[in-house]
Amino acid sequence: MDKNTLKEIGELIYGVKIGTPLIYDLGLNGVKELLSGLDFNEIIADLKLADIDNTMILIAQKLTNIVDSYIAHSFIGFEGALDRLKDYLDSNNKKLYLVASMSHRGWNDSLYEEFIKVVISKVNPYGLVVGATRPEMIKKVRSDFKDKIIISPGVGVQGAEIGSAICNGADYEIIGRTIYDSLDPLNSTKEVVKKQREKVSECKTPKT
Amino acid sequence: MDKNTLKEIGELIYGVKIGTPLIYDLGLNGVKELLSGLDFNEIIADLKLADIDNTMILIAQKLTNIVDSYIAHSFIGFEGALDRLKDYLDSNNKKLYLVASMSHRGWNDSLYEEFIKVVISKVNPYGLVVGATRPEMIKKVRSDFKDKIIISPGVGVQGAEIGSAICNGADYEIIGRTIYDSLDPLNSTKEVVKKQREKVSECKTPKT
Repeated sequence: MDKNTLKEIGELIYGVKIGTPLIYDLGLNGVKELLSGLDFNEIIADLKLADIDNTMILIAQKLTNIVDSYIAHSFIGFEGALDRLKDYLDSNNKKLYLVASMSHRGWNDSLYEEFIKVVISKVNPYGLVVGATRPEMIKKVRSDFKDKIIISPGVGVQGAEIGSAICNGADYEIIGRTIYDSLDPLNSTKEVVKKQREKVSECKTPKT
Repeated sequence: MDKNTLKEIGELIYGVKIGTPLIYDLGLNGVKELLSGLDFNEIIADLKLADIDNTMILIAQKLTNIVDSYIAHSFIGFEGALDRLKDYLDSNNKKLYLVASMSHRGWNDSLYEEFIKVVISKVNPYGLVVGATRPEMIKKVRSDFKDKIIISPGVGVQGAEIGSAICNGADYEIIGRTIYDSLDPLNSTKEVVKKQREKVSECKTPKT
């Protein structure tokens, strides 16, 4: 996707999530260049960090001049992992999102109540990631963590209807392949925004 | 660490594990160049892959001409994640290691028996990762998966004694900061090898 298209898309959406494949393709300097001068409210590094404290902080450090936020896995636990990552990000004014539930079939939500939820409470992150393909999990996580920003992948190519995650309680939907695999990403973005508005206005209208 | 030192170290050890910080620093071409012509039996990409199938395969693809093996997390589950990653790696003659237990304090081994172990059995990976700081877990995983290669981080700076993981049933110990943070990495490697041999000959000698 060229920078002009990205600039136009940036005006239609809240923020952008970058991942490992892009970083490998462009290198850190290339990613910085690609994103500079664009109008995103938030740039999220979706590296699904899931390592010991020392390694995650080393990785996070290398991206501090590019991104605002990082996604890490709750699953790795607090002591010696998310505790120090959270401290590091706090002291650098960066935000942390923790994965509460993923969008693919094999993800095991039976571990949420007694394990994932406990880790999230200890870490107290800025936000949470909950797959849009799991509407009941979005509702549950929203009810457990009322003040957290919930972002939701799994919309579009992965199966969930555009707008449905927001209707269930998420704050933002993460649209991946529907836009970046499109032959006309700008137009696809406009369609996504339109569909999302329609769906949301439908579900948020009080039934009479 | 310069390439000559790395070459000399390569003659003393079995293989090398590369991670995200190195890839960010050098770029994929830089890593390829650094490792070319060196005499490692195995190069392992320790990215702690923990995402949906599509993303993990995209990442793995970019490293196929550099590494022999990949480390992924068991906890992401089988369907829509490790199932397709394993198929992809099999068809490209690459090996998969799954994390069975990590070395830091916050890692929760109470999920091993009913969850992690089940995922590992479904995926049937080449090898497993078990932290050296958890001797009982190495023994348990070794007894559950007799034919799998067990590699063990957490030796040295993270606290476990050199050689102890092998004594408990691991096949290889992963030595990180003890070597790469050393002012004299070649000499530190020699010391590690010596200590490991001593410890292992001690524990493997039948008591009379």
